[in-house]
Amino acid sequence: MKLQIAIDRVLLDEAKVLMQKLAPEADILEAGTSLIKDYGVTVLDDLKEEAGGAQLLGDIKTIDEGAYEFKQGFRHGADILTVMGASSIETLQKCYDVSEGCGKDMMIDLLECTPEKTSEIVHFPHAIYCLHTSVDQGATANPSGDVLAFKKAFPGVRRVAIAGGINLQTVAGLSAAAPEIVIVGSGITKANNPIDAARKFRRVMAETCKSSM
Amino acid sequence: MKLQIAIDRVLLDEAKVLMQKLAPEADILEAGTSLIKDYGVTVLDDLKEEAGGAQLLGDIKTIDEGAYEFKQGFRHGADILTVMGASSIETLQKCYDVSEGCGKDMMIDLLECTPEKTSEIVHFPHAIYCLHTSVDQGATANPSGDVLAFKKAFPGVRRVAIAGGINLQTVAGLSAAAPEIVIVGSGITKANNPIDAARKFRRVMAETCKSSM
Repeated sequence: MKLQIAIDRVLLDEAKVLMQKLAPEADILEAGTSLIKDYGVTVLDDLKEEAGGAQLLGDIKTIDEGAYEFKQGFRHGADILTVMGASSIETLQKCYDVSEGCGKDMMIDLLECTPEKTSEIVHFPHAIYCLHTSVDQGATANPSGDVLAFKKAFPGVRRVAIAGGINLQTVAGLSAAAPEIVIVGSGITKANNPIDAARKFRRVMAETCKSSM
Repeated sequence: MKLQIAIDRVLLDEAKVLMQKLAPEADILEAGTSLIKDYGVTVLDDLKEEAGGAQLLGDIKTIDEGAYEFKQGFRHGADILTVMGASSIETLQKCYDVSEGCGKDMMIDLLECTPEKTSEIVHFPHAIYCLHTSVDQGATANPSGDVLAFKKAFPGVRRVAIAGGINLQTVAGLSAAAPEIVIVGSGITKANNPIDAARKFRRVMAETCKSSM
């Protein structure tokens, strides 16, 4: 499992400091939607410099104008960009084509997607499908159950991520479900000591992986 | 009917010039999603100065973190902000509460919303409901039919807007449907003479209104 740390709703200077500190602890560093909307997509250029060896994900939440937004995002340094599963199939296809053309990754945010809609959009083989509970709805109660149910419903999907209020207790339960990516935001960034918190997540994730072997 | 002119996918300097020129011809000037994502929400402050007597709409397409994004948008000078109908009910409620608290307007973008989802979110009395065909899908074939069908399906909704490839021919057919707002983008901004094009739209809309009286 990879650890993606999401940085959101902070000033740019604080985001840069957090990225620099957390880069050694993260597989993927996420520039949250608030950073994109507050500062514009060029914020990715600034943050890329702090990301070290971690991949940089821009949570741009595209829902229309797929080619334009994805070209902008990759041009400004993102390795992975997000598009809403709620978009039209045409928008998803355009985002996928740009991603494939750039040799980069597309993450499909399944926020509020019905099973019917999801079944129409699971045919992008390299895409990462992100199970996502809205910040405005609070944490997902059972991330492990969510991932297992998704994998059962859509066995053809290879790449799965999970986001939404993940904490140390719920991450420990993810061994059987084994998503490719676990996304943690305030559970790390709002901790008294974010580096320490990230290390705790990594440790629990490593133990979780070992126990499932 | 009000004319909303959407400015999208241009550099900020060009957007400012366009807004200044088009302000006398528009009821509402829209800072398109590309401007928000390219430059950040503070672009609204810059554009507000050019909007003259027209209202400024920020097409921020919120889909999560409703209160945060709406507070940011109104703080930076927007009169109207957009939220996706595809959001969770909780997100829509938070956006609505902020809008009402600020005495500003919320526009719900119904892009890709099913009738079932739409029926769950038509209870915000002051919200503007925007029927929207994706840029990536091309123009709506029958905007007048779309508005009439929506009003018939959801008779309780008072405020309706329509967007997606509206041109002089289709706008002329909107008299019976009579949406509150008609949104035109490239039909005006990409014309050889945008001011002239905007005036043509206004003239056709005025004749359309007269003919329906």
